[in-house]
Amino acid sequence: MQHILSEAFPAMEQRYRANLLNCISGFKSLHLVGTINLNKQTNLAPFSQVMHIGADPALIGLLVRPHTVSRHTLENILETSVFTLNNVREDFLLQSHHTSARWDESEFKECRLTPWYSTRLTAPYVAEANVRIGLKLVETHTLKTNKTVLVVGAVQEIMFPRNCLMADGYLDMEKAGSLTSLGLDSYHHTQALARLSYAKPDRLPSLLQLDLVE
Amino acid sequence: MQHILSEAFPAMEQRYRANLLNCISGFKSLHLVGTINLNKQTNLAPFSQVMHIGADPALIGLLVRPHTVSRHTLENILETSVFTLNNVREDFLLQSHHTSARWDESEFKECRLTPWYSTRLTAPYVAEANVRIGLKLVETHTLKTNKTVLVVGAVQEIMFPRNCLMADGYLDMEKAGSLTSLGLDSYHHTQALARLSYAKPDRLPSLLQLDLVE
Repeated sequence: MQHILSEAFPAMEQRYRANLLNCISGFKSLHLVGTINLNKQTNLAPFSQVMHIGADPALIGLLVRPHTVSRHTLENILETSVFTLNNVREDFLLQSHHTSARWDESEFKECRLTPWYSTRLTAPYVAEANVRIGLKLVETHTLKTNKTVLVVGAVQEIMFPRNCLMADGYLDMEKAGSLTSLGLDSYHHTQALARLSYAKPDRLPSLLQLDLVE
Repeated sequence: MQHILSEAFPAMEQRYRANLLNCISGFKSLHLVGTINLNKQTNLAPFSQVMHIGADPALIGLLVRPHTVSRHTLENILETSVFTLNNVREDFLLQSHHTSARWDESEFKECRLTPWYSTRLTAPYVAEANVRIGLKLVETHTLKTNKTVLVVGAVQEIMFPRNCLMADGYLDMEKAGSLTSLGLDSYHHTQALARLSYAKPDRLPSLLQLDLVE
């Protein structure tokens, strides 16, 4: 086992430290965040710090780090109060990763991804994505320690492939083809191991087998 | 494509809605959070809302939902200011999932997981985990909308298997055997697809091939 104390972090080369500390907290969800400003300029950026905040009311959080190219995302959300989350699949992974470069024009155009609009929100969705979430800004929190911003959004609508919903509400994101990410630049398929029963003290968890909604 | 508007959420059966909305935001990291109170009672609980907040200084966030059995985690962190994150692997997945039940005594004892202590922190680590992070409380933010608490911790130390570190600081969590989770009860292995080069406007991202640190 390798053991590194925090005193060693400051002396590490910047990119090395960023890789190590981005990886250590494990696999993350991977989304393209779609926004638009008041001048109708669209923006698209990859985010891996997306979290489930609540189901009733339905809330999702997005962590926006300071001093990165993704600040357009935060500025646009603060201007228009809406944003979209779009899953990333293998067939447009290169284009998705490429949206993180510093582009002058919209990443949709520069990276050949297709904007799609619902009637519910002004923010653009990614047509290539097959799981999409539309959100409306609820609140933001700025961390004192490094000015990272937690954006909390209320879910306005969700879209997903018909063959992925199970009878108990479970969504098979693996079947949808959603990737997971690790660190700054690593992308992974997943392979289902088990769904386990609701944990109770009087018995060991058991495997769940559930029906697909036709 | 199935399209659900937010107006449909309140009428959904509670567990169905929880499954759907926990899944829709995608794969998450999976950790056992180890804490201890001032009476030396240990606690262990599974968390999937863990996020990278920064590398310099090294910060990790943990989202603690209100009104769940995991409130002991938050109470202990506020009491002692320290907590640990421990990765979950297939060989102790059942025990890890079982820690989410309502136990009277410490989940370490009830679920047959082994506490391990470093000299750095009073909070317990999980000996079965091979990726471990020790953290000290920096700040908390309580969301107005549903009282969820974002706990921000400063990384005090990290531990991981020797054969997982690449020359550029990338940690191969797949080789470490870390699982990823989806929704409330689904666990997945991962399969590496690609590491992609730092994105620049003048070229398409390319595959990275990097050396392992011996």
